[in-house]
Amino acid sequence: MISKVDHIGIAVHSIEESRALYEAMGLEIAEIEEVPQEQVRVAMIPCGSVRLELLEPMSPESPIAKHLEKRGPGLHHVCLGTDDISADDGRLRERGYQLLRDQPTIGAEGALVQFLHPKSGGGVLYELSQPQD
Amino acid sequence: MISKVDHIGIAVHSIEESRALYEAMGLEIAEIEEVPQEQVRVAMIPCGSVRLELLEPMSPESPIAKHLEKRGPGLHHVCLGTDDISADDGRLRERGYQLLRDQPTIGAEGALVQFLHPKSGGGVLYELSQPQD
Repeated sequence: MISKVDHIGIAVHSIEESRALYEAMGLEIAEIEEVPQEQVRVAMIPCGSVRLELLEPMSPESPIAKHLEKRGPGLHHVCLGTDDISADDGRLRERGYQLLRDQPTIGAEGALVQFLHPKSGGGVLYELSQPQD
Repeated sequence: MISKVDHIGIAVHSIEESRALYEAMGLEIAEIEEVPQEQVRVAMIPCGSVRLELLEPMSPESPIAKHLEKRGPGLHHVCLGTDDISADDGRLRERGYQLLRDQPTIGAEGALVQFLHPKSGGGVLYELSQPQD
């Protein structure tokens, strides 16, 4: 069951240049991680039970670089937390919603993740994420 | 202090046509409200401590209609909850960030709200909201 918003992904040109904005809001970058397979540098900013996830491209081939080119910096995706991603995947598929991967795969922090195609998500890229023990 | 994500605003052409998607994710519209001064119909979908806020224009003059025209449906804004919006307003202003209103004003549900200009927010329209007793 999907039961929470886990994080909100935000495309930025530069994490360092974004830092001042979040500090001015009283928020702080807790950690920065590189995800080489996505060619992206990720900064996590806790905000209550949700995290703001700044996504900076590490190369022009990064999906985030392409997003920045097309849409500019700003909101990129919303990640919803679930405790049964297989059931969610099956139910969405059965109802005709297009998922980006054939099945949930291991993503950031070792969680199982799946993505709903923005055309199926009303223009929103929804990520589903189930933490693994 | 800003301490949580209150809601995520999502521009939609039609709340009714969006309902099936959220039901397929196991989520439900809790209430629908009209905000005539913004010419917008608002559907709130609780998801843990956060709400997904579907925004449907009530007329072509609605800011949401203009957003749909320019960017299509999808993520519109992120609302952060605070317990001292005047302090946040002052601190952001002092550091050169552009706010959309001269001072916090009464918004949806009677809360005091302010908006950070997307050009100041790294392409994100941030709303700040302080509930009133």
